[in-house]
Amino acid sequence: MSHGGGGRASAQLVDELFAPAFDNASLNPGNDGALLPSPAPGHRLVFSTDTHVISPLFFPGGDIGSLSVHGTINDVAMMGATPVALAAGFVLEEGLELAQLARIVESMAAAARAAGVPVAAGDTKVVERGKGDGVFITTTGIGTVPSARVIGGQCARPGDAVLVSGTIGEHGIAVLSRRESLEFETKIVSDSAALHGLVAALLAALPEGAVHVLRDPTRGGLAATLNEIAQQSDAGIVLQEAAIPVQPEVAGACEFLGLDPLHVANEGKLVAMVAPGAEQAALEALRAHPLGRSAARIGEVVEDPLRFVQMVTRLGGRRLVDWLTGEQLPRIC
Amino acid sequence: MSHGGGGRASAQLVDELFAPAFDNASLNPGNDGALLPSPAPGHRLVFSTDTHVISPLFFPGGDIGSLSVHGTINDVAMMGATPVALAAGFVLEEGLELAQLARIVESMAAAARAAGVPVAAGDTKVVERGKGDGVFITTTGIGTVPSARVIGGQCARPGDAVLVSGTIGEHGIAVLSRRESLEFETKIVSDSAALHGLVAALLAALPEGAVHVLRDPTRGGLAATLNEIAQQSDAGIVLQEAAIPVQPEVAGACEFLGLDPLHVANEGKLVAMVAPGAEQAALEALRAHPLGRSAARIGEVVEDPLRFVQMVTRLGGRRLVDWLTGEQLPRIC
Repeated sequence: MSHGGGGRASAQLVDELFAPAFDNASLNPGNDGALLPSPAPGHRLVFSTDTHVISPLFFPGGDIGSLSVHGTINDVAMMGATPVALAAGFVLEEGLELAQLARIVESMAAAARAAGVPVAAGDTKVVERGKGDGVFITTTGIGTVPSARVIGGQCARPGDAVLVSGTIGEHGIAVLSRRESLEFETKIVSDSAALHGLVAALLAALPEGAVHVLRDPTRGGLAATLNEIAQQSDAGIVLQEAAIPVQPEVAGACEFLGLDPLHVANEGKLVAMVAPGAEQAALEALRAHPLGRSAARIGEVVEDPLRFVQMVTRLGGRRLVDWLTGEQLPRIC
Repeated sequence: MSHGGGGRASAQLVDELFAPAFDNASLNPGNDGALLPSPAPGHRLVFSTDTHVISPLFFPGGDIGSLSVHGTINDVAMMGATPVALAAGFVLEEGLELAQLARIVESMAAAARAAGVPVAAGDTKVVERGKGDGVFITTTGIGTVPSARVIGGQCARPGDAVLVSGTIGEHGIAVLSRRESLEFETKIVSDSAALHGLVAALLAALPEGAVHVLRDPTRGGLAATLNEIAQQSDAGIVLQEAAIPVQPEVAGACEFLGLDPLHVANEGKLVAMVAPGAEQAALEALRAHPLGRSAARIGEVVEDPLRFVQMVTRLGGRRLVDWLTGEQLPRIC
């Protein structure tokens, strides 16, 4: 508990663990805030925050540290923006092993370095044993976007192609398998990844204005994401079940667990809705990037005053793709 | 738990509680990030984050909602910056009453409105009962500061006057009295307040460059704050005990509890270190503002290779003002 009290032990934790890991020019002066350059003229700021309470802290393909970097970078990138800095707030539970915390902090710092986005500000609090759960991390991101660029859930238009950047469901199944100590024959690994490079490649390949919507289907999976967008854009969406890429191992695990892959969280995939004429170029740009190799066109935006998300099944029927009313996979991110 | 799963219940919680409370143009589109205008030319960004785990959630003079707005606005203001937007990440414990959450969210929204700084982005996660403690809130702030302005803990110079904007110790004692169900004859109320207006008034009254350091003495109190600054600036500080303003009720409570007011947290006070010639104008500007009426000169920055913070006591002796090695008041903010 003394590490959270603001005394010498707090300062030591910051000086010896956090500061060296996140070493960068903005964080180093040790003041209440970090100084960052203004965006270039003709740009606006994007500001996004994401709280991570994933359990367990370590899972196949990542941990809460790397996830908390990827999740927030992706939220910024989904606005069509270039992420420039992150801030991280930690809630540590008393009794958490320092070695475990160090592993998480180092993983977080490595993910930030790999993405080229510094952790410029941070805060750490400690709560008593039984009042937290190891580590929670709230990561906030700033990005810059050309002022004229408007990408958002409200911008889908009937006729838009609905693309996904790859196979769905790995993150949720990887976390669940670790949590429940399930053994699958093939190890399923989280797709956790920073998507700002993929977004930049997509935007560079298309005329400005051709990308209408970008969103990462995290909590609630593809189904929740598409329903949100349908609501925001006052439109319907029709999916083709056969076109939705799912790894056979994930499909098998979902069947075994009674889950629908459409409801399972992803942390390294994006949905893009693009103007009809831009579909082919968009798919080519996505597939040319390592994080978009399995990109596919999975459906279309349609006029629908009821804002339904529907799916044409493999057997040719149609079913409604609703978001879940209850809880399927808590603490997945 | 269903409120955190990303399904329909999550969306309802956001639509019905958070969105109406924080209603503003940036938050409303419901996308992954908020869009904000760029700073004016010749400005830089300030970026700061603060995690709030205060216990209890409600205390005399505030609650975790208002505190989480004040704390982050103050961190931004201490860089000499004008706060422009906040983001809030919530960790909710299963079983928290919705009425209690609503009270906190409304208090947070009211504090943000009163300060003129919108909550532009947010996220909510839910953890199982016994894995959290009601509510934790991480609030991140963005501000803008003229590029030429350099205010920070590294800028104290020998000869600078050390000012404090008012009486110290109320926040910590108010929280502790509620936590321990202590009854004092006079009710002690937290000083929790947003200090950006006070900072603006101070900066407007002095020539640019006359304010060297601004910092709010929160966790660890005045003692920790002054020691941090002494380290950063490679200087010593000599305080005059008789000049440090403390409410008699706070002094009495500290004596009763065996606490030193120098180590008790504040949430609505600032320390300013100003060039010697600017001292009088600075005190007048602080005292003319409602949040600085009891402002006082409490000491001076001195040359000291050992970076000691010393205090001339009421009896004329000198003692070292160290920061605490252990834990005095956990979860005070």
